[in-house]
This record gives sequence, C-alpha cells and structure tokens, in this order.
Amino acid sequence: MAKITSQISISLDGFAAGPNQSLDNPLGEGGEGLHEWALASEAWRRQHGYEGGEAGPDSEVVEETVEGIGAYIMGRRMFGGGEGSWDPEWRGWWGEDPPFHVPVFVLTHHPREPLAMEGGTTFNFVTGGVGAALERAREAAGDGDVAVAGGASAIQQYLAADLLDELYLHIAPILLGGGERLFEGVGDPKLEPIKVVGSPAATHVKYRVVH
Amino acid sequence: MAKITSQISISLDGFAAGPNQSLDNPLGEGGEGLHEWALASEAWRRQHGYEGGEAGPDSEVVEETVEGIGAYIMGRRMFGGGEGSWDPEWRGWWGEDPPFHVPVFVLTHHPREPLAMEGGTTFNFVTGGVGAALERAREAAGDGDVAVAGGASAIQQYLAADLLDELYLHIAPILLGGGERLFEGVGDPKLEPIKVVGSPAATHVKYRVVH
Repeated sequence: MAKITSQISISLDGFAAGPNQSLDNPLGEGGEGLHEWALASEAWRRQHGYEGGEAGPDSEVVEETVEGIGAYIMGRRMFGGGEGSWDPEWRGWWGEDPPFHVPVFVLTHHPREPLAMEGGTTFNFVTGGVGAALERAREAAGDGDVAVAGGASAIQQYLAADLLDELYLHIAPILLGGGERLFEGVGDPKLEPIKVVGSPAATHVKYRVVH
Repeated sequence: MAKITSQISISLDGFAAGPNQSLDNPLGEGGEGLHEWALASEAWRRQHGYEGGEAGPDSEVVEETVEGIGAYIMGRRMFGGGEGSWDPEWRGWWGEDPPFHVPVFVLTHHPREPLAMEGGTTFNFVTGGVGAALERAREAAGDGDVAVAGGASAIQQYLAADLLDELYLHIAPILLGGGERLFEGVGDPKLEPIKVVGSPAATHVKYRVVH
C-alpha cells in the first residue's frame, strides 16, 4: 500500500531551522548548514538543473527521497508568502519548472485556483486542513507514495495526527543553538529505525512510525 | 596520542534524561528508554556480571565504548548523592566491583579520600574542576584514552572547554518531550561524523571534534 512519508534535515540539537527566521531568511541563522549535505550532491544539483556535485551516500539518499512519490503536501510557509503577506502572484520559490513533477497540495487558509507549472508540477491550494490535503494527495498519487515536503510545522501536524508512515531524518553535524524544533507538539509517536546511512556531511536515519 | 572521549545516550528530541529528575529517579520520566539498547546487549550484561543478552551491532558498540580506556571522569551526580546530601559512606551505584576497572576521577566540591573498590576501580575525588580532573586522569591513563563517563553536565563542560576529541552518541528512537538537554551551553564545537552504526534499538554516531 502507498505510504505517507516525510524527510527533513535537522541539526544535532534538534532544530529544523535556525534562530530569527523571517521571510527574508526562512532557514534562520545558520540554517543553510542543515542542507549542505544535499546541495553538494550530484543528485540534488541534477534535479535542480545544475551540473557537477558529489556522488556517494548523500547523493544516493537524495535520489531515494524522490523515488515513488506520486504527490506532495506542503505547508504554506514552505510554498512561500506569510499568512499576512499572501500574494496571489506568488508562484513558489522554485521558478517555472519546480523540482516536484507531480501534484503538490499546499496547506493554506487562502482559497486559490490550482497553479500549473512546467514539468508536471501543479500547486493545489487546500483550505480544509491536513486530513483534506492528505485525501486529495492520496487520490492524486494513485499507487505512488504521498510525501509531506515540509516545513517542520506541517510534519509536526501529520506526526501528531499519526498519519505519517515513515520519517527520514537527515541529521547535520551542526548545532544551531535555537530556532524551530522539529519534535515539538508531535505527541508520542512510536518510531523504529529501519535504515541508517552515514557520511561526513550527515547521518541519515529512516524511521518507521509504528501505528 | 591518547584521546579524550565521551559517549552518551540521547533521545531523538535531544534529551540525556527525561523530565522530573530526582535522586530517586536520576534518569527522569521515561529516561530508562534511553538505555534499553545497551541493557539488552550481551556485552553490557557480561560487563555487569549477568548472562544472556543479544549479540549484534548494539553489543559491539558496547564493547567498543570500553576499549582502550585508561581512566574515567565522572560528574558528581553520576557518582551519586546530591550536593546537599553528600554521604561519605556512599560508594557509588555499582556495588563493590564497579564496571570501570581503572581509576575514576569524580568532579566534586567535597574533598574525600580515594575509594578503592574491587576489580581495579578506584574513585578519586577532584575539587579543582574539569581541567584538574583531566590532568589527573591523563596521568593515570598513561597511553590509554580518558573517557568522560557523564552525566550530561560533565560532558557539556568538557565540550564547552574544547577538551573532548570524540563524542559517541547513541540516539534512542524515543521522544522524551522534556528533561535535560545534552547540547546546551556547549558553545559551537565543530563536529564531524566518523562512524555510524544502526540497529532497530538505536543509531550510534561517533563524532570527531575538530579543534
């Protein structure tokens, strides 16, 4: 059966973003260090239209995180634009050909017509909450998995509702000292490590959520 | 050259002990879950005089954590007895034959004569702070490594003083939701993962501290 998965980078002290997040600096201070392992990889660069990058375990993890995904769910801040600065002209952070290539369901309070981009990505705006977004994403994904793309708040909501089946953590070897914690308000999910991949840049641990 | 190492179990949300720690419950609520991976292992059981237990990666990690250690340093709470309830009759939590088998240097504010136990363990009480304890432990260890045995507060002090060379984290797949965080007040050490071992019970990541 298709799974509901998620993957996110966190610091060794548990933050998914650094302190003083803002619209200009959505990752917070030092937060770019969370993603260095991915950005340096061959797979990430290729997926985003660049050449070069490093092969190896981190690149293989990047490949793995997009395999078999039929639809994404995304929080409104990840799509972009704050609640108070919602811009109907906003088309996401990723240019005209976003790296999703499947339907994306954006959690929001603002109804908006679907936004079809190049390369197979369509942003759909769902105002009915996490359950409604999941229902629509499942239907769109068919036999594929549904991935909760982030941010931390969206993942927290799906964990708290016990709707996630797998959580793939990328633990960056940095300390942020403050910011947005991933594991807050998530209840008490039962997690079981089912895969570990290590590199000098990050430790990747895939957890199965035992329902 | 001999290294200064440390190893500790933390929850996935970063706690080295659960909420509401007390002298009666030094691990805090739920904190026993941090150590299940070790307690179930054949190596831990053998080291502590019991039979049985599971072989496998967790047991190998337990073996590895005692290899080559010539002396330990330990915080006063790990040795036992609070600052206000210091008991000169207290001989530690481990019975007459503690599982260290080398000199142990206890950080304390209370001078006390060395306490020789069976099996090679001697508890030495050091009132001069982390630097003085390290100097004495190095001398006692000879060519062996010095291990900071814990608790979290002792490890934090050695990390903050940039005196640790390696930190071996055992990340238990549990959320404690509160308690004593490992990575607080440790400054900004530069950490590099050098080894990863996974099992269903824990993810073990060894970090080198880049000085």
